[in-house]
Amino acid sequence: MRTKAAVALEAGKPLEIMEVELEGPKAGEVLVEIKATGLCHTDEFTRSGDDPEGLFPSILGHEGAGIVLEVGEGVTTLKPGDHVIPLYTPECRECPSCRSGKTNLCTAIRGTQGQGLMPDGTTRFKMLDGTPIYHYMGCSTFANHTVMPEIALAKVRDDAPFDKICYIGCGVTTGIGAVINTAGVEIGSTAAVFGLGGIGLNVIQGLRMAGADMIIGVDLNDDKAEMAKKFGMTHFVNPSKVDNTVQAIVDLTKKGDDQIGGVDYSFDATGNVKVMRDALECSHRGWGVSVIIGVAPAGAEISTRPFQLVTGRVWKGTAFGGAKGRTDVPKFVDWYMDGKIEIDPMITHKLKLEDINEGFELMHAGKSIRAVVEY
Amino acid sequence: MRTKAAVALEAGKPLEIMEVELEGPKAGEVLVEIKATGLCHTDEFTRSGDDPEGLFPSILGHEGAGIVLEVGEGVTTLKPGDHVIPLYTPECRECPSCRSGKTNLCTAIRGTQGQGLMPDGTTRFKMLDGTPIYHYMGCSTFANHTVMPEIALAKVRDDAPFDKICYIGCGVTTGIGAVINTAGVEIGSTAAVFGLGGIGLNVIQGLRMAGADMIIGVDLNDDKAEMAKKFGMTHFVNPSKVDNTVQAIVDLTKKGDDQIGGVDYSFDATGNVKVMRDALECSHRGWGVSVIIGVAPAGAEISTRPFQLVTGRVWKGTAFGGAKGRTDVPKFVDWYMDGKIEIDPMITHKLKLEDINEGFELMHAGKSIRAVVEY
Repeated sequence: MRTKAAVALEAGKPLEIMEVELEGPKAGEVLVEIKATGLCHTDEFTRSGDDPEGLFPSILGHEGAGIVLEVGEGVTTLKPGDHVIPLYTPECRECPSCRSGKTNLCTAIRGTQGQGLMPDGTTRFKMLDGTPIYHYMGCSTFANHTVMPEIALAKVRDDAPFDKICYIGCGVTTGIGAVINTAGVEIGSTAAVFGLGGIGLNVIQGLRMAGADMIIGVDLNDDKAEMAKKFGMTHFVNPSKVDNTVQAIVDLTKKGDDQIGGVDYSFDATGNVKVMRDALECSHRGWGVSVIIGVAPAGAEISTRPFQLVTGRVWKGTAFGGAKGRTDVPKFVDWYMDGKIEIDPMITHKLKLEDINEGFELMHAGKSIRAVVEY
Repeated sequence: MRTKAAVALEAGKPLEIMEVELEGPKAGEVLVEIKATGLCHTDEFTRSGDDPEGLFPSILGHEGAGIVLEVGEGVTTLKPGDHVIPLYTPECRECPSCRSGKTNLCTAIRGTQGQGLMPDGTTRFKMLDGTPIYHYMGCSTFANHTVMPEIALAKVRDDAPFDKICYIGCGVTTGIGAVINTAGVEIGSTAAVFGLGGIGLNVIQGLRMAGADMIIGVDLNDDKAEMAKKFGMTHFVNPSKVDNTVQAIVDLTKKGDDQIGGVDYSFDATGNVKVMRDALECSHRGWGVSVIIGVAPAGAEISTRPFQLVTGRVWKGTAFGGAKGRTDVPKFVDWYMDGKIEIDPMITHKLKLEDINEGFELMHAGKSIRAVVEY
């Protein structure tokens, strides 16, 4: 079949809207009509050419929602008409990683996915001249139709709006999951969130859900504070306005006979390795847990004195919020529908596929939290 | 009273054996006759002048065992005749850290202890000419008698030999505690231990107790392998004999359908920040936990790509093996007496206090695992 897609032909160039050829689903695969997709910084990281593993031409996009149109041979858990969210982290439930019960990083199709290919080592997309087009993060939601492995699709309820729940495919789950799956924040905790973009806001609402007492937002832009407050931020620190960000956070958290200070949990949602260090070092001696969410530039390294860890701080990271997609994503959709989590205020812009490059401009200008393309 | 001590008069100089004045215990304090003390690398770190926080003149030593001679006003949990092990990490059970239940890093007397003073801000030791002598790590076990806070003494059974259980005051507890308290190793785990000195051997026997399946020892010195095998090491890697230490460990741990490889747990017992990085990076994607035990040189920093943490590795550290001294040390003594843990083969040298400087020479020459001074 033919479908419409925004294709990344070369690193650093705007996406081009075009008709492409899409082959039908092979065994274990599913054809999905994408109804909406968010634009994430990770797509831009690859589009811009900063991603050293970026492949071209490719169809980017990994934060989508849609409807199953057709299933390949042997597919048993999905049928045409099912509403689904694509998963860039699949959940096969059979590989050593899934079986471990300790991680969400399913390895069933990791090798081919990283090469922009389907599990059989080929692409389903090609240009009209026959040139293969790479898949992206196993999803390629910047196409109106895509083919994905059954294990990389979460079946969700039919009454949830695509233009909102697509955000659960990445940002919402990453932020909230970092709090509840990776950090395991307890009621009454103190926390600091570095970076109040789309991920940071979701960390904040995750902390509110988890019952944190003090939620300190950290951002260089004062304008970000207002929205963050709406999601549960209780205190704000602008690093450009204090002598020492770590000390400012430590001072905020001293209370009663605890004059050591430091947050119980901290989260980096900036991708800046210096900020990651601050996030670790503002966490509490003895038990502070710091979680890296942001994706750093190629080659960048985190560092600290080992004394920070020897005195009880823990440095962790999270991918897709530690969520097991087929299991957890439907639950997140329920939470949205039940009003436990908010998404609507974060979808600040709606675009047509033809205008997708404007979405990246809004992202760069810091004007959008999330721009969503509706097909 | 007067007692005999090995005094560190200046950084970098041999200890000097001399009579010193010791004031009796004040309120909340206890006079202890030290019967035996181990020589630890941390003592040498300070003696040598490498410790930027080293104070002189001081009486070093923090790995001792002895008998209570006299208790100060208000001391209720100890009485003359009790056998005790000094704790450089006290356990007050009342400070915010103790109450947290999340850390062993009691902060009740942290400020003064770091300054070489008793909790009231003075020293109990002085030279015969009246010059105050600093306490060290709140213990100063290189004196035949010392005064310590009640909260920094673990009461242990009377039938345990001082010349063995003194080692529980630091090395044994640090190594075994890193496994059982900090890492929480499960039965069937795989693990790598970097550095097969006194701490590393205790990590290995901790892993054996915890039921680890594969215990990989890593050391530049092949001669260390024999002893490590006796404590439970199952595989040995000499970094000077493989192209890439991380890869060698990863390859050893690949099995069945897990072709990613990596150990479930790794431990640095070297204090070398490059080794700490290897220890992290040889741990398993998705769930590897790496624990820093070694004390790094002043100013040294650990580093890695954040991707290592984002893909599920956890970087932690441990001090005194995460052990709560008054609660856990008596249990470790029981384990020794019950034959659950071994100490005797690690006490390779016995010295008199007069010969204590020979003990540091043995340490530098790599000839001793633990040299113990008996009074």
